[in-house]
Amino acid sequence: MIERDPFVTDIDWIAADWGTTNLRLWAMSGRRPVQRRALERGMGSLPPDQFAPALAEATEGWPAVPVIASGMVGARQGWVEAPYLSVPCPATPHLIEVPGDPGGRPVRIVCGLRQDNPADVMRGEETQIVGLLALSPDFDGIACLPGTHTKWARVSAGEICNFKSFMTGELFSLISHQSVLRHSLGGGYADATAFGAALSDAMARPERGYGALFQIRAETLLNDLDPAVARGRLSGTLIGWELAAARPWWLGCEVTIIGAPDLSALYAQALAAQGVPAALMSVEDATLAGLAAAHQQFLTTT
Amino acid sequence: MIERDPFVTDIDWIAADWGTTNLRLWAMSGRRPVQRRALERGMGSLPPDQFAPALAEATEGWPAVPVIASGMVGARQGWVEAPYLSVPCPATPHLIEVPGDPGGRPVRIVCGLRQDNPADVMRGEETQIVGLLALSPDFDGIACLPGTHTKWARVSAGEICNFKSFMTGELFSLISHQSVLRHSLGGGYADATAFGAALSDAMARPERGYGALFQIRAETLLNDLDPAVARGRLSGTLIGWELAAARPWWLGCEVTIIGAPDLSALYAQALAAQGVPAALMSVEDATLAGLAAAHQQFLTTT
Repeated sequence: MIERDPFVTDIDWIAADWGTTNLRLWAMSGRRPVQRRALERGMGSLPPDQFAPALAEATEGWPAVPVIASGMVGARQGWVEAPYLSVPCPATPHLIEVPGDPGGRPVRIVCGLRQDNPADVMRGEETQIVGLLALSPDFDGIACLPGTHTKWARVSAGEICNFKSFMTGELFSLISHQSVLRHSLGGGYADATAFGAALSDAMARPERGYGALFQIRAETLLNDLDPAVARGRLSGTLIGWELAAARPWWLGCEVTIIGAPDLSALYAQALAAQGVPAALMSVEDATLAGLAAAHQQFLTTT
Repeated sequence: MIERDPFVTDIDWIAADWGTTNLRLWAMSGRRPVQRRALERGMGSLPPDQFAPALAEATEGWPAVPVIASGMVGARQGWVEAPYLSVPCPATPHLIEVPGDPGGRPVRIVCGLRQDNPADVMRGEETQIVGLLALSPDFDGIACLPGTHTKWARVSAGEICNFKSFMTGELFSLISHQSVLRHSLGGGYADATAFGAALSDAMARPERGYGALFQIRAETLLNDLDPAVARGRLSGTLIGWELAAARPWWLGCEVTIIGAPDLSALYAQALAAQGVPAALMSVEDATLAGLAAAHQQFLTTT
């Protein structure tokens, strides 16, 4: 995991995506990642006084350059609480300082966003949206960021206008790993036809999908239901509910999906079935472009 | 837990509700329970060869009388697989024998029910429905059995016609204990006004309730949402989805709810809001009446 690199002298800052479960680090030379590291040292498993040692260990061998971090590291239960900015607001990063340059490095955390009515919050995704605008400066439309808590954000004239979160990823994980349906789903892929049918059903008649959940278990018991079909049905039902509730966020809109490739493909298939073509952007590209913008901000204000 | 009783000689059979998590036992004198015992020795934690020792331990001090058991003890992963009967079928218990009179006691397991289209299964609730008919021989209507996997069953002319299962209890438990909403809900009661409003919303526009789940978390973070209101909203949303999907099972029907008191009260409140008055029956009364009918069946066939 920890390795020396001949180009280590090129490193002029460190980008950190520090979430609830994982810490992802990139040693950066300008906008170019020179080295990547990933550790299971997320905010959820670290008491406040363990963030500095965790960062020191994770960046061993890298020079004492500034660290720019986004994500749950800035939560109340994180390292240093980074206050939420209220939307609507310009899509530019706001940084707070971790006092005392831990490990001899200046450390800055990007502030998350809040929305008061209806209440909503994000930490980490705002940096990916900043990155989307850095890579596509004229973008005007919807950023869809599928994940544990999927976000739909409206971006216009360089501002983040409003946003909406859904628990789809977390619910899929809980149901597929811990409910009685864990015996039905297996760990493989989702059948595309079953996904499409369940999606369409859940969008047209959301309550019908709710009634169909236990049926997945019963069909496994009685008819040896194919696990890929079961997985497609659960995934299609949850994403179908989300799309039904998020209709104002995609109907007639330009949508860019920023997420893991498999999950992004499911969202793209779901939107395509509604006649909405979506562009795809990698999470790493968006995150690094957003953190690079935050690093520029850091340079101009220090 | 294990205690001697002066009336132990009156015991002529043992009733057992043996589910996934718990084993509940009643030493019976005819239709009257003489002693009760409850142990966390459910089917889910016992390999097949441990059922006999678990029963021997749990019934220590009771005479060597027949044991009549219902529930997941008859599942494929249970003690002895009791085949499903297909609905429609008469609401009379069918028993299979555990070979070899373990512990010197004849042991019988009540068969569960299956439905082929749409696929559905039950194990344990069929005995409560038999009990409902034993206690109300003229019952013609819907039995609603809220729990981990809530069942709605249509009973007419002494037959169980068809049924429908929902994962409401299991989803509530997973979301309230293991999702990000665990920080919002606390362990207390559900606010009745919040429950009613979320129920009404979820029934009218199910997708809106889906979008409101993460909002519970955000309102906790931003506005210190009252945990009782949060709990009422989650409960109302899930039961609202269930009622929307189960509409043919209660609209214009006579409904009897057989469940734990708090949960039954929520279902009764929800049905009353739709103009459907529901009768309540205790799970213990229904289970014991059903197992007593099964015991009669055992006596007449041996």
